Amino acid sequence: MTGAFGSVFCDQLDTLLAWRRDVRHFSPEPLADGIVDVLLDRACRAPSVGNSQPWRFVRVVTPALRSAVAASADVANSAAADAYVDPQTRLAYRALKLHGLREAPEHIAVFCDAGAGTGAGLGRQTMPETLDYSVVLAIHTLWLAARARGIGLGWVSILDPAEVTRLLDVPPGWRLIGYLCLGLPLVPADMPELAIQGWQARIDPHSTRFIR
Amino acid sequence: MTGAFGSVFCDQLDTLLAWRRDVRHFSPEPLADGIVDVLLDRACRAPSVGNSQPWRFVRVVTPALRSAVAASADVANSAAADAYVDPQTRLAYRALKLHGLREAPEHIAVFCDAGAGTGAGLGRQTMPETLDYSVVLAIHTLWLAARARGIGLGWVSILDPAEVTRLLDVPPGWRLIGYLCLGLPLVPADMPELAIQGWQARIDPHSTRFIR
Repeated sequence: MTGAFGSVFCDQLDTLLAWRRDVRHFSPEPLADGIVDVLLDRACRAPSVGNSQPWRFVRVVTPALRSAVAASADVANSAAADAYVDPQTRLAYRALKLHGLREAPEHIAVFCDAGAGTGAGLGRQTMPETLDYSVVLAIHTLWLAARARGIGLGWVSILDPAEVTRLLDVPPGWRLIGYLCLGLPLVPADMPELAIQGWQARIDPHSTRFIR
Repeated sequence: MTGAFGSVFCDQLDTLLAWRRDVRHFSPEPLADGIVDVLLDRACRAPSVGNSQPWRFVRVVTPALRSAVAASADVANSAAADAYVDPQTRLAYRALKLHGLREAPEHIAVFCDAGAGTGAGLGRQTMPETLDYSVVLAIHTLWLAARARGIGLGWVSILDPAEVTRLLDVPPGWRLIGYLCLGLPLVPADMPELAIQGWQARIDPHSTRFIR
């Protein structure tokens, strides 16, 4: 593939981008054997600064650990609700389902190994945050590869990263970038759930463009 | 598209992931009229925390600004080379071409508008860095949409973000996440240039997976 991929593929890719949603409503049905490995292989195709590949994927399968993470998310979510001063906003926030940690058949915690020597520091002397960004790129790659196969992903950021890192007992120097739920979505949608629920609409893409 | 996209598309998506490279060798040929707008539209389909859509795209067209950014990158690159203590590593670093800022027909600086009220803080009380991560997701979306159309993208992180932010005179509170070159690649490849040049090979994907 030295050139373009053709308009049929580009249209399908656009459709994938539209249907790639953050999923919080999962069927508890297990995913097909081996599919998580396929998805993690694809995630490792992501770009990374200096080709450092600093992503580390922790599949969380122990029921007690899954429950502890879900409990941590509920505590953080409750605190987040309380932080909204306006009672109506607080009520609207509380009405949202923001994670599917108890139903999703798969939990994957994604870390950045800040101590990895790979890449030898190339590309991150002035912008060291690009190491974390590389892990974000791997998460997005995983997300698209999953959705293409009909599998939904939800990125849970409403939890205490220090607590989750401690729970999972990972090597020192690993930073939690994202905690992911994967599973079959109960209600596929091409609109963000937060837009459907009236929390935040899509903004005009033109309003994000500037010229200098 | 309520379910999977089918195996033909999945295979093509895998091929796209393999051929999506960081490009530093561009043809100076201008891109087709309107294509940058198409790509930025696609980028706005990226996921974002609380549907906050905090990405801001600045197309840098003024020749003096483009030159100033390229000069900034060269200064940062030279300092980065000097930071390698081992003379052989320093020599190997200096031999790499790490940006195509002078040839690429398009420069796009991508910022995070930290002051945007969109999303009302949802999802980022415990992990506020997810706002920046949302912009990274938009950059990756742009990258894939571009490569699908035969257009290469190079992410330049070897520059002084404060200096570039000042040069582009953007509103207060905007943080530079990435500075991108876009154009037709001179040499399409399915291997990272840093792997081809012997700087950093691909690591075994299995070494990045753990179970808890």
